[in-house]
Amino acid sequence: MNNPNDPQRMERIVSLCKRRGFIFQAGEIYGGLNGCWDYGPLGVELKRNLKDYWWRVMVRERDDVVGLDGSILTHPAVLKASGHVDTFSDPMVDCRTCKARLREDQVPEKNGAKQCPNCGGKELTEARPFNLMFQTQMGASAEPESVAYLRPETAQSIFVQFKNVLDTARKKIPFGIAQIGKAFRNEINPRNYIFRSREFEQMELEYFCAPEQGMQLLDYWLEERLRFYENIGIPRTKLHVLMVPDADRAFYSKGTYDIEYEFPFGVQELEGVAYRTNYDLTQHQNASGKSLEYFDEETKAKFVPHVVEPSAGVDRTVLALLCEAYDEETVTDEKGKSETRIVLRFHPRVAPFKVGVFPLLKNKPELVAKAREVQALLRPHMMVFYDEGGAIGRRYRRQDEAGTPFGLTVDFETLGEKGEELRDTVTLRHRDSMEQERIAIADLLATLLPQVQ
Amino acid sequence: MNNPNDPQRMERIVSLCKRRGFIFQAGEIYGGLNGCWDYGPLGVELKRNLKDYWWRVMVRERDDVVGLDGSILTHPAVLKASGHVDTFSDPMVDCRTCKARLREDQVPEKNGAKQCPNCGGKELTEARPFNLMFQTQMGASAEPESVAYLRPETAQSIFVQFKNVLDTARKKIPFGIAQIGKAFRNEINPRNYIFRSREFEQMELEYFCAPEQGMQLLDYWLEERLRFYENIGIPRTKLHVLMVPDADRAFYSKGTYDIEYEFPFGVQELEGVAYRTNYDLTQHQNASGKSLEYFDEETKAKFVPHVVEPSAGVDRTVLALLCEAYDEETVTDEKGKSETRIVLRFHPRVAPFKVGVFPLLKNKPELVAKAREVQALLRPHMMVFYDEGGAIGRRYRRQDEAGTPFGLTVDFETLGEKGEELRDTVTLRHRDSMEQERIAIADLLATLLPQVQ
Repeated sequence: MNNPNDPQRMERIVSLCKRRGFIFQAGEIYGGLNGCWDYGPLGVELKRNLKDYWWRVMVRERDDVVGLDGSILTHPAVLKASGHVDTFSDPMVDCRTCKARLREDQVPEKNGAKQCPNCGGKELTEARPFNLMFQTQMGASAEPESVAYLRPETAQSIFVQFKNVLDTARKKIPFGIAQIGKAFRNEINPRNYIFRSREFEQMELEYFCAPEQGMQLLDYWLEERLRFYENIGIPRTKLHVLMVPDADRAFYSKGTYDIEYEFPFGVQELEGVAYRTNYDLTQHQNASGKSLEYFDEETKAKFVPHVVEPSAGVDRTVLALLCEAYDEETVTDEKGKSETRIVLRFHPRVAPFKVGVFPLLKNKPELVAKAREVQALLRPHMMVFYDEGGAIGRRYRRQDEAGTPFGLTVDFETLGEKGEELRDTVTLRHRDSMEQERIAIADLLATLLPQVQ
Repeated sequence: MNNPNDPQRMERIVSLCKRRGFIFQAGEIYGGLNGCWDYGPLGVELKRNLKDYWWRVMVRERDDVVGLDGSILTHPAVLKASGHVDTFSDPMVDCRTCKARLREDQVPEKNGAKQCPNCGGKELTEARPFNLMFQTQMGASAEPESVAYLRPETAQSIFVQFKNVLDTARKKIPFGIAQIGKAFRNEINPRNYIFRSREFEQMELEYFCAPEQGMQLLDYWLEERLRFYENIGIPRTKLHVLMVPDADRAFYSKGTYDIEYEFPFGVQELEGVAYRTNYDLTQHQNASGKSLEYFDEETKAKFVPHVVEPSAGVDRTVLALLCEAYDEETVTDEKGKSETRIVLRFHPRVAPFKVGVFPLLKNKPELVAKAREVQALLRPHMMVFYDEGGAIGRRYRRQDEAGTPFGLTVDFETLGEKGEELRDTVTLRHRDSMEQERIAIADLLATLLPQVQ
């Protein structure tokens, strides 16, 4: 089960995510909405922690990056200029026999001919492009000029607002504009759980630079991003860097790396780091008629900036965190019986709850009061789960499944009933090793806080 | 200008927001997308601080509330059951003369007859309902069953996932499910800047309870929410509580309060706190055929829970923060010349930057190095803006306009050149009073951190 390529492993992860409230199917009680997912109480915290850490290291701790939050509804002229209206499409074929609509590149060949995977039919239509953008009508009239699109990527609002940001943020090149937000693609075949969905979230940085800085910054950002994944608990050994070959790169890109992760369903892309030249800004400058040039006060040069783009998927990174964390092991309980322990070995930085607080018994008011004190002490600084129900071993197991790295048990020693030297100490249990140690309540914050930030 | 009802006041606020990078029009270089806005570098931080504080006090610091993050694309059955498909509409009329499409309740009467405000024409069509939801097509075929809606409110995914959350989160009634996220309404006349836009963000809590708890919890949540606004710097004197009269309430609501704020364009709603009975869950239970009942283990009662909903608008709260903070005052500079100072008096908790750090002169490497040290000391804990360009007075003014509550200047005293007792101290300047005091670098974190959290 711990073989990362075991096909059952993915099923177990999906099952745990449903059972513990990480991820639910959108509209499940109505049969579900294909390719859309809702994050439950644990999932929303995991995702927030990931996004907050990205924002912290990519924006708040850097002098050279500022943030943006653009609208999802997008003016058609933006996506016409970017090329999405004309070329953001998959080739589709219809089966003349069973009427199934299929992505041409996913139709398998049999005996040298393409055959419908649905019914085996051999009569398929010619391939036609199917645009992947969702469109809607804005305003009260249904004229063509009232079309708006749901953005297929967050990047375009960064390019479109480049001049406004440049004029207001007092930044000199090289500098970046970062954004986290939802994007939408009408995938024909959403698949692999939250890996390829129709509604998803992106974390994108557009880092603007002089033309001669592009190739060097491409390598700089690749390294930065690899370090990011290591810092959230995805070891570099599980990451693959693919240098996208010339033929597969967008025509305007001078270099693109894919950062891939070993998912149970195969090695798949987590993030693209692309040197996009000045293609995007030039397209928008030409289409809008507004200058998007930068004037370098030192060199007196005027040019349309080049850009390096690290573009990460929030949901697929959440999935990588879940896949990397999921573990089953056989343990022996206090009665000598062996059982399977399911544990999510999240890095404490991304774990939904940082610590579980447990009074040993719920019918002893002194234990409960002390446990509530410990909770109140820690809660302003980290997510705490308080649980007083059931045997302590079962409470530990529940937190193992939720990925909570630390457990604190308030017992009779805490109350000073087993000697003064143990008064106001608690048991600190470590999720991964299951080892337990005694720690003073007064030392808790200083011990735990640096590990969970 | 500081008269809150001065019509020019709103224009000044909008102008400052553009000039300093709080808010830009979406797609501005293409003429703009009506009713959609992009948040720039300062605006995105202000909005994040607001949302993070809401999440902290509404979810993370409470035992009885968990979070959710549902998809924006919504199954039509969800919005059919909720009533949005059939009744979420405005009455529209067309002018037969100039073809303008108008909201009936916004057509003024003249001489006892409704006249088109566009051309003065008197021939208007009968009113027809215009549904305010954006719709789109999902999947490759364009059949009616492939329609999906952009959610008009975040609440419905909470109701639809109620059972999943109940089954996984180990909560007993009363407990709540909270969500922050985008929602969309195809407003015919978006207006008042970011107050009424087509794409906006909500912070909603659905707090589930037993029927007999509803009215009391309605009052409890009203008080909690008023306190929230006070804690982000909106004084209670500027807030109006409107008890919505029976005739104006939704038919299923047993009580609704509107929390209103004195905007420059009038007293308008910030948040609704509504006791919605068990209308929503009952509708979804009936439509889906899935039980959404709760079993109370103590009383052995089984019932569909009632709900109290505090529903706040992120963007209109951002606007209230900006309106409340905006101030102009006449000050006298060191040469005795009087000038106008523009200052955003944000509560430090929501201010985009918490502190500005300034070396007195940028061409003295010792000053710059020391200022960078101060920046590095504070940055892991709060947003810091480093600025070394221009006269120190101008740098202060720039931070006044950005709403930064504290300024720190590193000068020759800091370096010990004016006596040992001032070594490693800096000037701490307060934005609101412009008063300055001397403070040891070693005391900075302990002094500032409690004020900005």
